[in-house]
Amino acid sequence: MTMEKGMSSGEGLPSRSSQVSAVKITVKEFETKQSHKEKRGGFVLVHAGAGYHSESKAKEYKHVCKRACQKAIEKLQAGALATDAVTAALVELEDSPFTNAGMGSNLNLLGEIECDASIMDGKSLNFGAVGALSGQRENTQVRINLEGDLDLIEEGVVAAHCLAEKLLGYPGHSHCKTRNNPVGHSFLVGEGAYRWAVDHGIPSCPPNIMTTRFSLAAFKRNKRKLELAERVETDFIQLKKRRQSSEKENDSGTLDTVGAVVVDHEGNVAAAVSSGGLALKHPGRVGQAALYGCGCWAENTGAHNPYSTAVSTSGCGEHLVRTILARECSHALQAEDAHQALLETMQNKFISSPFLASEDGVLGGVIVLRTCRCPAESDSSQDKQTLLVEFLWSHTTESMCVGYMSAQDGKAKTHISRLPPGAVAGQSVAIEGGVCRLESPVN
Amino acid sequence: MTMEKGMSSGEGLPSRSSQVSAVKITVKEFETKQSHKEKRGGFVLVHAGAGYHSESKAKEYKHVCKRACQKAIEKLQAGALATDAVTAALVELEDSPFTNAGMGSNLNLLGEIECDASIMDGKSLNFGAVGALSGQRENTQVRINLEGDLDLIEEGVVAAHCLAEKLLGYPGHSHCKTRNNPVGHSFLVGEGAYRWAVDHGIPSCPPNIMTTRFSLAAFKRNKRKLELAERVETDFIQLKKRRQSSEKENDSGTLDTVGAVVVDHEGNVAAAVSSGGLALKHPGRVGQAALYGCGCWAENTGAHNPYSTAVSTSGCGEHLVRTILARECSHALQAEDAHQALLETMQNKFISSPFLASEDGVLGGVIVLRTCRCPAESDSSQDKQTLLVEFLWSHTTESMCVGYMSAQDGKAKTHISRLPPGAVAGQSVAIEGGVCRLESPVN
Repeated sequence: MTMEKGMSSGEGLPSRSSQVSAVKITVKEFETKQSHKEKRGGFVLVHAGAGYHSESKAKEYKHVCKRACQKAIEKLQAGALATDAVTAALVELEDSPFTNAGMGSNLNLLGEIECDASIMDGKSLNFGAVGALSGQRENTQVRINLEGDLDLIEEGVVAAHCLAEKLLGYPGHSHCKTRNNPVGHSFLVGEGAYRWAVDHGIPSCPPNIMTTRFSLAAFKRNKRKLELAERVETDFIQLKKRRQSSEKENDSGTLDTVGAVVVDHEGNVAAAVSSGGLALKHPGRVGQAALYGCGCWAENTGAHNPYSTAVSTSGCGEHLVRTILARECSHALQAEDAHQALLETMQNKFISSPFLASEDGVLGGVIVLRTCRCPAESDSSQDKQTLLVEFLWSHTTESMCVGYMSAQDGKAKTHISRLPPGAVAGQSVAIEGGVCRLESPVN
Repeated sequence: MTMEKGMSSGEGLPSRSSQVSAVKITVKEFETKQSHKEKRGGFVLVHAGAGYHSESKAKEYKHVCKRACQKAIEKLQAGALATDAVTAALVELEDSPFTNAGMGSNLNLLGEIECDASIMDGKSLNFGAVGALSGQRENTQVRINLEGDLDLIEEGVVAAHCLAEKLLGYPGHSHCKTRNNPVGHSFLVGEGAYRWAVDHGIPSCPPNIMTTRFSLAAFKRNKRKLELAERVETDFIQLKKRRQSSEKENDSGTLDTVGAVVVDHEGNVAAAVSSGGLALKHPGRVGQAALYGCGCWAENTGAHNPYSTAVSTSGCGEHLVRTILARECSHALQAEDAHQALLETMQNKFISSPFLASEDGVLGGVIVLRTCRCPAESDSSQDKQTLLVEFLWSHTTESMCVGYMSAQDGKAKTHISRLPPGAVAGQSVAIEGGVCRLESPVN
């Protein structure tokens, strides 16, 4: 595996819209590193949410990204396929109290946790999703699991993965054929999703574990402010401004959806996404993290697509849904210049989308990777090919914390990407990325 | 308004795939009818589910389509916009015990009703959806409404419409700005969706009203057969065949999702869809009827699209989701020849989709309309334009029952479209349609 110099640098595109006030394009350069150990190859890119990452918590955000990369790489090195590796990364991201997914998720209007998650396998093109999964009312929830305890499903993405696996696990993947999934469901919500997860042995956890001190404090503070605002204000715009400023003040509730994209030693790609959703959301609200085409996308190379692509999105769920952003990015990445294609997509199909024409700002972020095979650079092994992996992240939110690692690296690299000073969140795009080469057997 | 001769007849496309064994193309011809009453104009096309419609119940299927058309046209004549008219049509379709939506919906594995529905407004591009809404356990459900009764939300599409309206009803439609929808949700599921609907005054109804004698009998019969099959069979394919044959025998459980598409006197389009989902589905399963891009799509003409388009889909939910079929059809309909574009989409993006490569058959149906403005044919009114409305239905299921009507017609036309003899459901496409002209004021 060779980590090589980053993508060739590019100039910012001219602004296509008055909404786009600034475009920052930074291209990271990576040090060359050679390794010829015969471990299984693969690459992972994760993020801990597009939103606002305070400097004071930067260390924690980076740390969870690093751990998530390591978990995925351990799987890949052991020969696991992309879906297993991407699940391992997501579980780690969900388990952190600093992310808005799984543990520490935003609480809804009733003080409950309800999670969305999904996963897509680029090889089979299967997809599994859970929406508004589990939920914990602050005082009164009565939800009994098989042991008679009050339990939550902690890891939404495991349930989504398990759901996808039920489709994967039978010949012909069989949307409509399996005993465990007799009518071929790929999307379960609410209590039904909870029952299904428990029946399939997905780990659950007792109450008060997923709700952290921070998320509960943020819930109480936000709810108090919302009630106050509703009493004294009739102007919705002021209400919104107040909500925004309170969020930033308190440095909570401003992160969204976490995600990961992976390519394994066979060249299969997978993508996954998990979210606690918006703070103070209505119970039952499902965002992009559970929705096909919106939260994640993965598609191996095929007759109509020269590149394998994997995408995971984050940000304002409704913005990502209206634009079906994950699938849109995946399609765009079939163009020759990945960097240019992603930038144009973020500008023209997201910020300037007619589906979001009346929005003040369009908030989101994506991580993407695409791969293609090319002859190995070294002459040493004629039975090897190089898998060229291009990986990028882009966001219109103030910041995005990412991590990435290949199976031959000793540790993950992490980075908090920020909009340049003066750029307006929701109207500007930051984009960065790099390239690495993986040696892989010829299939 | 002039109902004119149908679209020019076309030959069947050569089969693009071995899966496509037959292509039937019938083009309906409609009688010319003139009327110059100054009622508000508009047009509606509805369907009562793509699936299998027995001759013995043909009269009921046609009758409900006729009533749904009339309800929509009454709204349009009174000056209502497309979203109101499409909602009126859907409520009528949901209220019929013969359709798999609202009243008489398929029961899930626990004997509950859980409905999916969504609506899209082509003018604002807003979308509202509810998934796995309400639910009624056969014996034990405890769900209390404001009056302390055990209630169900009968009309999923009203909840979806109401949700969309909350987005529509404020300046700038404001995904993130309204007091009633403080975080801009467009998709609610399960108990949360139920609570929201009750809080917003959506009519609910006492238990045992939505479950009909037929749906309960079908549930018991299907469940008994499933249990028997699970005991004695290990071959999943046999299980599937048994399910299919029992469904056809009993003439129940084989219809899916109902829908409607409308254009109003201003030329705005809207689409809506509602479904009880698959028989014996797992609780919490959400199908295409609630999913953005999959169940319905509506988009007024704009800078990038010469035609206004509205689409509603029906069939195997997972097939329609994987192919994001509603949006796919809408995009394809921007080509010059609507008939050809829809046929190619059904063949290449649906039956032959790489996302459904391992399916034995791909089951679905769509109704579509597209409109464009052209100068009025008569010289009588220089301040009038003609709105050319092309409408089509297409299905890979054995049959599809449709109805259509313009605001100037005395009554709706209805039709049960069937695959030609010998054609294999899931591998063949039927497509039919027509054209009408509406006089409308120049905007």
